[in-house]
Amino acid sequence: MPSNMLAPQKQMTGMFGHPVAENPIDKMFDAVYAHYGLNWQFWKMDVSSSVEIPAAIAGSKAMGFAGFCITVPYKIDVIKNLDGFDDDVRVIGAANYVTFEDGRMIGHNNDGKGVVKAIEKITSIAGKRVVMMGAGGAGRAMAVEIARAGAAHLTIITRREAQGVEVADMVQRATGVPTEWILWAGNIALPEGTQILLNATHLGALPELEAVPIDWNTLPADATVVDVITNPRITPFLATARDKGCSIVDGVDMLVQLAMQIFEAWTAISPDEQVFQVAVERALSE
Amino acid sequence: MPSNMLAPQKQMTGMFGHPVAENPIDKMFDAVYAHYGLNWQFWKMDVSSSVEIPAAIAGSKAMGFAGFCITVPYKIDVIKNLDGFDDDVRVIGAANYVTFEDGRMIGHNNDGKGVVKAIEKITSIAGKRVVMMGAGGAGRAMAVEIARAGAAHLTIITRREAQGVEVADMVQRATGVPTEWILWAGNIALPEGTQILLNATHLGALPELEAVPIDWNTLPADATVVDVITNPRITPFLATARDKGCSIVDGVDMLVQLAMQIFEAWTAISPDEQVFQVAVERALSE
Repeated sequence: MPSNMLAPQKQMTGMFGHPVAENPIDKMFDAVYAHYGLNWQFWKMDVSSSVEIPAAIAGSKAMGFAGFCITVPYKIDVIKNLDGFDDDVRVIGAANYVTFEDGRMIGHNNDGKGVVKAIEKITSIAGKRVVMMGAGGAGRAMAVEIARAGAAHLTIITRREAQGVEVADMVQRATGVPTEWILWAGNIALPEGTQILLNATHLGALPELEAVPIDWNTLPADATVVDVITNPRITPFLATARDKGCSIVDGVDMLVQLAMQIFEAWTAISPDEQVFQVAVERALSE
Repeated sequence: MPSNMLAPQKQMTGMFGHPVAENPIDKMFDAVYAHYGLNWQFWKMDVSSSVEIPAAIAGSKAMGFAGFCITVPYKIDVIKNLDGFDDDVRVIGAANYVTFEDGRMIGHNNDGKGVVKAIEKITSIAGKRVVMMGAGGAGRAMAVEIARAGAAHLTIITRREAQGVEVADMVQRATGVPTEWILWAGNIALPEGTQILLNATHLGALPELEAVPIDWNTLPADATVVDVITNPRITPFLATARDKGCSIVDGVDMLVQLAMQIFEAWTAISPDEQVFQVAVERALSE
């Protein structure tokens, strides 16, 4: 090979979603790629309508993407555009990342695995009463994995009955863990004895920073409170919980755990968690 | 806007072609983007079959590309996948780059403008007898623009009669400049009085570095010899011409001129040529 042959080609990865502006995942991955000397890039793609998802997914295959993530609101829509998916996607009904295996696009879901890993750095899930606000793409996965991690009981609180009931039934069927649904109206009172409380909605994200309407007097001070939102890292929801004395797990803790698994699936490199922590801290402080 | 809103989103640009490995255009654009402080990337996409071109082009729109280039062998195939094209594309029948205008993909062709600008830094085209080897995507554009630049006579030499005759007829119809076609067989003798000789084939590119079969005894020492190949910068064809005393214009000279025009079309920044020259020198020496 002549000495002036060019270096390895750029490999592209990315994330489809809407909106995506406030998500630090691209800066985090780019910093980790650079750390490991990889000529790889991560590109957040704002796809404004689900009508465009088939073209975006087919395009990523034709262009030779090395892998991609899918975020709200396309985690369910994406599935029918793939060539296959794993058991987690089959149970959860949503995918959050895709690998290319012999040219086939395979869907995976580790949203729930990420949150379980992040929570278990603070407290055990086994035997706990868990309450989850919202049941969208990430919520479905989190509910399944929290049940699999040994929760004693799960309550799902949503504004849309059909969605909440469906996810509660799915979790109970898939895991055997008793799971109930409650309608979310007004500043809702939490079930008695709540030990872990998760916000799986997008209330609290930049730029709106909306409140999560719950009755804070019903939250025990020894509960662990979890938020999926990554920007801001400390949402109004987490700030209020912390003020009440609760332990908190933020969306970035969760993102780091799931991103490490995705990075390894794409690159076959087992990354150092510290590299991801530094990368995401920098991304959020820019 | 809160102070922790993230910085401007990454903008993606790129090039579709096959093969693309030896083209330094990505490193050149990435260096220029960095010079101007733009959070932009250039990604070479190796699309192995024209069957995948419609999905790749539609995908680039769905993903929100800021623009893309098209190279061999898709400069003609791409056109029917666009939303529109300019007059140059209509005349030449090939496009080498695309801009997004109000969400519409518009095809352009400045392959010929790039070579004319690069040649005219060395010698005037007006009144000259010009000979071009090959008549593919870039060749069509070069023939038209060289005729428009005032060439007295143009000879197109190709192995495929249908292609050569069609391009010669197209050039003569579009510009009025007398244009003839000659069959390329063996080490072909150049027409008497050749003043500018262009290689528009891919003979001489890495890794094969093939010879361009012409009868070098028929090339006048005062001719200007031009090659479209960018890697290596000095092909065997240009090296032989230089040894015979001819002035030479290499593919990188041409690439810099056309890339500057494309950069300006995408970013609305009028770039400094020196920035592009340094960027491409570095890309080729890596």
